[in-house]
Amino acid sequence: MIVTLRAGADADTVRRELAALGLWTRRFEHDDAVCFLVEAHSSSVDARALGAIAGIESVATARSSHPLVDAQPRAVRVGRVIIGVGAPPVFMVGPCSVESEEQIRAAARRLAPLGAQFLRGGAFKPRTSPYEFQGRGAVALRWLRRAADDVGMHVVTEAMSAEDAPVVAEHADLVQVGSRNMHSYALLRAVGQTGRPVLLKRGMAATVEEWLNAAEYCLLHGAKSVVLCERGIRSFDPSTRNVLDLGAVALLAHVHRLPIVVDPSHGTGRRELVPALARAAMASGAAGLMLETHDSPGDALSDGPQALLPAQVATLLAELRPRATEVAAHA
Amino acid sequence: MIVTLRAGADADTVRRELAALGLWTRRFEHDDAVCFLVEAHSSSVDARALGAIAGIESVATARSSHPLVDAQPRAVRVGRVIIGVGAPPVFMVGPCSVESEEQIRAAARRLAPLGAQFLRGGAFKPRTSPYEFQGRGAVALRWLRRAADDVGMHVVTEAMSAEDAPVVAEHADLVQVGSRNMHSYALLRAVGQTGRPVLLKRGMAATVEEWLNAAEYCLLHGAKSVVLCERGIRSFDPSTRNVLDLGAVALLAHVHRLPIVVDPSHGTGRRELVPALARAAMASGAAGLMLETHDSPGDALSDGPQALLPAQVATLLAELRPRATEVAAHA
Amino acid sequence: MIVTLRAGADADTVRRELAALGLWTRRFEHDDAVCFLVEAHSSSVDARALGAIAGIESVATARSSHPLVDAQPRAVRVGRVIIGVGAPPVFMVGPCSVESEEQIRAAARRLAPLGAQFLRGGAFKPRTSPYEFQGRGAVALRWLRRAADDVGMHVVTEAMSAEDAPVVAEHADLVQVGSRNMHSYALLRAVGQTGRPVLLKRGMAATVEEWLNAAEYCLLHGAKSVVLCERGIRSFDPSTRNVLDLGAVALLAHVHRLPIVVDPSHGTGRRELVPALARAAMASGAAGLMLETHDSPGDALSDGPQALLPAQVATLLAELRPRATEVAAHA
Amino acid sequence: MIVTLRAGADADTVRRELAALGLWTRRFEHDDAVCFLVEAHSSSVDARALGAIAGIESVATARSSHPLVDAQPRAVRVGRVIIGVGAPPVFMVGPCSVESEEQIRAAARRLAPLGAQFLRGGAFKPRTSPYEFQGRGAVALRWLRRAADDVGMHVVTEAMSAEDAPVVAEHADLVQVGSRNMHSYALLRAVGQTGRPVLLKRGMAATVEEWLNAAEYCLLHGAKSVVLCERGIRSFDPSTRNVLDLGAVALLAHVHRLPIVVDPSHGTGRRELVPALARAAMASGAAGLMLETHDSPGDALSDGPQALLPAQVATLLAELRPRATEVAAHA
Repeated sequence: MIVTLRAGADADTVRRELAALGLWTRRFEHDDAVCFLVEAHSSSVDARALGAIAGIESVATARSSHPLVDAQPRAVRVGRVIIGVGAPPVFMVGPCSVESEEQIRAAARRLAPLGAQFLRGGAFKPRTSPYEFQGRGAVALRWLRRAADDVGMHVVTEAMSAEDAPVVAEHADLVQVGSRNMHSYALLRAVGQTGRPVLLKRGMAATVEEWLNAAEYCLLHGAKSVVLCERGIRSFDPSTRNVLDLGAVALLAHVHRLPIVVDPSHGTGRRELVPALARAAMASGAAGLMLETHDSPGDALSDGPQALLPAQVATLLAELRPRATEVAAHA
Repeated sequence: MIVTLRAGADADTVRRELAALGLWTRRFEHDDAVCFLVEAHSSSVDARALGAIAGIESVATARSSHPLVDAQPRAVRVGRVIIGVGAPPVFMVGPCSVESEEQIRAAARRLAPLGAQFLRGGAFKPRTSPYEFQGRGAVALRWLRRAADDVGMHVVTEAMSAEDAPVVAEHADLVQVGSRNMHSYALLRAVGQTGRPVLLKRGMAATVEEWLNAAEYCLLHGAKSVVLCERGIRSFDPSTRNVLDLGAVALLAHVHRLPIVVDPSHGTGRRELVPALARAAMASGAAGLMLETHDSPGDALSDGPQALLPAQVATLLAELRPRATEVAAHA
Repeated sequence: MIVTLRAGADADTVRRELAALGLWTRRFEHDDAVCFLVEAHSSSVDARALGAIAGIESVATARSSHPLVDAQPRAVRVGRVIIGVGAPPVFMVGPCSVESEEQIRAAARRLAPLGAQFLRGGAFKPRTSPYEFQGRGAVALRWLRRAADDVGMHVVTEAMSAEDAPVVAEHADLVQVGSRNMHSYALLRAVGQTGRPVLLKRGMAATVEEWLNAAEYCLLHGAKSVVLCERGIRSFDPSTRNVLDLGAVALLAHVHRLPIVVDPSHGTGRRELVPALARAAMASGAAGLMLETHDSPGDALSDGPQALLPAQVATLLAELRPRATEVAAHA
Repeated sequence: MIVTLRAGADADTVRRELAALGLWTRRFEHDDAVCFLVEAHSSSVDARALGAIAGIESVATARSSHPLVDAQPRAVRVGRVIIGVGAPPVFMVGPCSVESEEQIRAAARRLAPLGAQFLRGGAFKPRTSPYEFQGRGAVALRWLRRAADDVGMHVVTEAMSAEDAPVVAEHADLVQVGSRNMHSYALLRAVGQTGRPVLLKRGMAATVEEWLNAAEYCLLHGAKSVVLCERGIRSFDPSTRNVLDLGAVALLAHVHRLPIVVDPSHGTGRRELVPALARAAMASGAAGLMLETHDSPGDALSDGPQALLPAQVATLLAELRPRATEVAAHA
């Protein structure tokens, strides 16, 4: 926002009124005229509310570049599950990769009784090196769907290419776009065109605004809804795999009022820290969690070191089901 | 750690055993010999535990560069307060700056009944511009001390220079070193030499290891103890003032087992997000919070836009006292 | 590299010998045994060269994950142009977007006499918002090709989707993958499968190793060659659009000995700084430059503020042609 | 700048005129009124120049927070040397630490004939760990001064504490403030109060604006002049020690027109890349270089792996003396 002052108004008085509302301002002057730029890290305030302040002549605002995202309800329905502000927490749990039909069926049978509503697992895997395991491909989508159906779970899995988007959409309740592809607009368009709900992970160095614009691509091209997923941003510190930005989660949950889930597995890369970060994510306002687990992490074909052990998932979900509801009451 | 394999051992079997323990490995070879570097974002495992794995010949470890920090107890006593893992949550609350004796007395009288154990407020203020308010100086230390004493609170306040360290130490129970000075080794030495407990904020782009080395400077030069304080790191996203790194908090609380508090006021810069991040910080393992508040944020001489309103502090502390205890039980 | 010492060797003596070679080391110990991890920011040294140092028992190395990239010659041929270490500088110049046939023909006629070997211009544009101009599409490829052919220039233009890769490859001598898609492995595969040479821009937060692995995807799937392009990484400083990482350029040019060009237009976003950064890029070891220009920057449909004016391009290319050759002699 | 349009003006026409001048704009609206925020990464344009554009009613500007820096001449005199835009390149060369009188005398005798005007070397060393070599202290200042005097060189060396500032100022022509202390305002004040010229290194995550504000602290408290020194910023890529931000160098040299030198030794950490980055720095507009060298890098007590060998310094300085002059002609 840009706040223009009336001629003769006391600029410092106005600045104090704006600060009282949580607004950081930068002052610009022209002859005797003063205006304030409200900086991006300010609290969210309705421009009309500022009109009442003596000394303010006008408040100019920037038009949102993501109106469809802004118009999305606070909670969205995916299959039989409501995801979003005010709804019970949603858990998307499973192995990093779908490795075999037996593996994913065993995972589903273990996870359904714990209250996990979504079974996750990659059929197509984006890997840093072309020589690493690239996923089982389309057949794994069928394994995943059958495993979930047998226990009444939903499916979330990633589409890595426009070409694969239709077959992924056919098998998944929620079509994931991964961090590495958040800026791949051709993929966003193709995923949107399937008409499915989309789970959109944040790019590793994407601003919140860029992320919301990526969501707008999905909605504009036909996605039924978009659920955002924070999975950590890139930083200079090697002691965790990424830095989980729970400030962005709070911003999306409490200010933008959008459905946002958090992936603390990629967010830290350290199995030992995943439970603490899962709790923190829920406390910050997340509508749910995406968690990696494996029956035998040492044998995982990808991301084994960060996969939760079966007992850890059981404990964590048992703890977070009541707690998260309670947290929601504070929102 | 560097794990060297026995001749003839199956490297992939060993790699899987290490992954099962949460270790990310990078493989190095020499002729037929194989060794694995355990990467920094791995779970913490005792080197001796690896000796039992078939195929491992030896496990070489790096010596810690901060032995005094490592030897510090999980919880430390500052005045009558215990800060650390397992202890009840500690709240350090007050205005950004000590502006007048009346202001700080009013703040103390408001905060003590809420259960805040420490009164915060700056007498010496590090400001980006030399033309901004630089703090009231030494007189403010006396105001702060008297205000706290009158209501039975403790004092935490910042020392900005070696020269001021003694007078700050005389008035404060906990001597703060700010983010901008975390790498100022002459100041760390001077603050250590006062023999007081130190609150050491993380530098805006400091790694966890650098931060612990800074704490080592304090202890080596005589500090009674060091409490760490995460206040957000610098990032590319303008929508929050900093990015609060709660993964680092979980790492310090649950793995290093050190006393760590979190400052969500600077961590987000957005008053509206402070409560959510305060809850998240406690859930991630923080031993307490440092919070900015002001009776009239618009009139604050610094950081008004991020200061919590009195009512917000009352609500938040009422909520977190029981909750934090409950969280501690999971630690 | 991991350097293991002989029993009884003096570790500090060995460390000094390694430092003399430019190696930063981290010490690991097991009982009396010592080994050194050579840190990533060390000078590049052949492992065999270390064998001669007294006290070293063995040097273990990590296998490269990008052997095809490593095997690529220092200079590659694209059409009639050689790009790489030792060759004359290559200039890829043109508007951000191909806006009309007239526009791109005028640009080509202006640029060819200046010695620019490649005409650049986007037919498919990756834009942050779906409501911004998305490029003219396939028809612009034909305009671009004809404009280049008429003046004897080559064509470099971006493929944004696997679907469009074949038609882009049909019209371009060099198929560009943009920053936002550097991690889009499905696109890298599709572009590789066209068999064309690829210009691979660095992702906005990609490490050099991730970038080389992305290049490996292209080569493994059939790309004739890969030319890398540094265009700036994301940072915390708003005063330039990105931070141009000329250290990475020097590393790729002088140590990896790969063909690397630099885009100072996106690297700074400030037209006034482009010439200085263009000179710096060539001095750091770049094999060429990618530059944005527009006959009328105010009318550009994208990136006008950073487009060089026609006179600036003329001056800059006139200056850099001889200078760059001279620099190459120092390489 | 904030550009306010006249009622009825065509906003897109004005936007194009601003883009033509190199300005990135963000549009804000209030009823029918439009204003543009000129974004930080825009070219530098005088506000008065915009007055001539039809449709613009007024241009509001922000007051600089560093007027003394802005008023500093483009080139400053330190001892007998001119440093800045248009002057011959300045070379500040020497070991990381002053280790002994013999060592620094030998270095001085080697460097003076090469044309290095300043002898560098630390007496007080800021080290990450308190157990690393901390410098010889005040005695090393005398060794450094005598070594420089004997060969007619000037001295630049670091002050790490307010307490040491006077003795450093007594022995140095140019008092260095290191990266780790750029935000240590008490030190900036103390160094300023010596009245000496200051060499101010950029903090590892400091924005250009924060850096200029730090310079303002020095000048406001009495520094004769401030020379800035870019030494690399922190990033996510481990392949170089830091990322040298030559965009910031070009900005300071060509737009702010301030004296700026570059330290490619810390900027890369890789001896093999220092010459290429030194050339690039000069090409980007640097007024000079700060380089680490050691007669026997393996024996250096700090930073040996990045120290240039004597022969490298000789070659580099021989090359850059004429080249830099030539570059200056383009400025």
